Amino acid sequence: MRNLDETTITQAVLAYNRGTGDARLCEVMTSLVQHLHAFARDIKLTEAEWRGGIDFLAKVGAVPPDRHEFVLLSDVLGLSTLVLAQNERKPKGCTQATVFHVAPTPAVLVHDLGADINPQLGGPKGYVQGTVRDDKGAPVPYAEIHIRVAGDCALLQADDRGHYHFSTSLPGSQQVRHEGPVNQLLGALNRHAWRPAHLEFSISASGYQRLTTQVFREGDPYLDSDAIFGVRPSLITHWQCQPAGATPDGGHSNEVFYTLAFDFVLARQPAA
Amino acid sequence: MRNLDETTITQAVLAYNRGTGDARLCEVMTSLVQHLHAFARDIKLTEAEWRGGIDFLAKVGAVPPDRHEFVLLSDVLGLSTLVLAQNERKPKGCTQATVFHVAPTPAVLVHDLGADINPQLGGPKGYVQGTVRDDKGAPVPYAEIHIRVAGDCALLQADDRGHYHFSTSLPGSQQVRHEGPVNQLLGALNRHAWRPAHLEFSISASGYQRLTTQVFREGDPYLDSDAIFGVRPSLITHWQCQPAGATPDGGHSNEVFYTLAFDFVLARQPAA
Repeated sequence: MRNLDETTITQAVLAYNRGTGDARLCEVMTSLVQHLHAFARDIKLTEAEWRGGIDFLAKVGAVPPDRHEFVLLSDVLGLSTLVLAQNERKPKGCTQATVFHVAPTPAVLVHDLGADINPQLGGPKGYVQGTVRDDKGAPVPYAEIHIRVAGDCALLQADDRGHYHFSTSLPGSQQVRHEGPVNQLLGALNRHAWRPAHLEFSISASGYQRLTTQVFREGDPYLDSDAIFGVRPSLITHWQCQPAGATPDGGHSNEVFYTLAFDFVLARQPAA
Repeated sequence: MRNLDETTITQAVLAYNRGTGDARLCEVMTSLVQHLHAFARDIKLTEAEWRGGIDFLAKVGAVPPDRHEFVLLSDVLGLSTLVLAQNERKPKGCTQATVFHVAPTPAVLVHDLGADINPQLGGPKGYVQGTVRDDKGAPVPYAEIHIRVAGDCALLQADDRGHYHFSTSLPGSQQVRHEGPVNQLLGALNRHAWRPAHLEFSISASGYQRLTTQVFREGDPYLDSDAIFGVRPSLITHWQCQPAGATPDGGHSNEVFYTLAFDFVLARQPAA
């Protein structure tokens, strides 16, 4: 290990790492070192570029931890989608998961079924309803439904027949955070930071796998260029525009409003 | 870009990144994404492991910036040595550079030639002398010589004939920092954190490339397992043990002491 150069360094590092008693850690670190070195070789990384990369990572690390800047970096590099896709083994017919963009977690407000989860927001309202069920069509009663839209986080519980309904300000396209080093990277790459309009759901029920997913709005201009690669065709939904008048919650709207019907199909926990 | 899965995500990310006007950035990011995704695929990275990796990076980022924890991570993964080796294009005969382990920078003390740069430290003394010269043997006068040993940082200036001399506490083996996530990684890999005894030099003179290198001590038990892969055979030096008596600086030692002769050969700045 004295005469290291660009041709011998990789094997030297792998030899060091081989001493771990954890076979999986050894496998992970072996692949990591090989790919990291191959990257540096393939592009003949310069010292100035290496320094730039180190400084970039330090800036990402300096963002307050509750902003999860490394998660955002993983998202915009497509790593989050890759990891999710290669690990998702849901039975056919179940609702697809997608990357859950981790933003600062706001306080969770618990609502009754049918509530308006963000009454303080203006703009047209959307009325959402559906059933939480399994892949055989049987309802899943009393599922806990976390909903996030426009920075608010709400918690509902489905009823004994798995039915849920709520209203919300109609979601619009939105940008991932504007400040921060990842956004600067997007700028340098001439990439936009937009995400198509969506609602985020995290649904759990005893005996079922937690489902973390997003429901997108048909017609959004960013469906084909989501900054974090989260769109799936099965998750694009039609929000039906309704004329002013009686609303699904028994009220009345003087403006047009929207309705959406969407069922969540949960996968059972694998048998122990 | 709607129907992304583990087979299509990589090309989708590359297509996004292709919009940058910076051809080199595009090349770097293309290779980075390809290798990052290949790593995740090769080992079939799980969601829990992905989360572990994100948490590790966040911990590295949370270390105060003056500790340069990402540099240390690059060092222990062999990336620093690889980048240095593939960019070093010094003429034959010049002193080799090696990774400069960036530790918190202490205040620099300016010394006269011949000074003891760390008189407060106990243990045997080492007397170091040599010449700063070019690859033709011509002396380089008045070079600035930064020296770091055992946490002290000293500055000397060579004389008009390129000669320098100083004394120091004889360096011993030392560990890279004990605290911090990189050290925890070394622990998980069953790797030690030791570096062989060395002096760190950074030498600059007008018209020459700055030389950043380390001079190691023959016989150190960690020469073959330096935690950061910094040893080069041409940088291993013989510290000659001398009997008690007259010292090179005209003083007297009641104990044995050591002497080291080492010349630094600088490379000229490339013509503009």
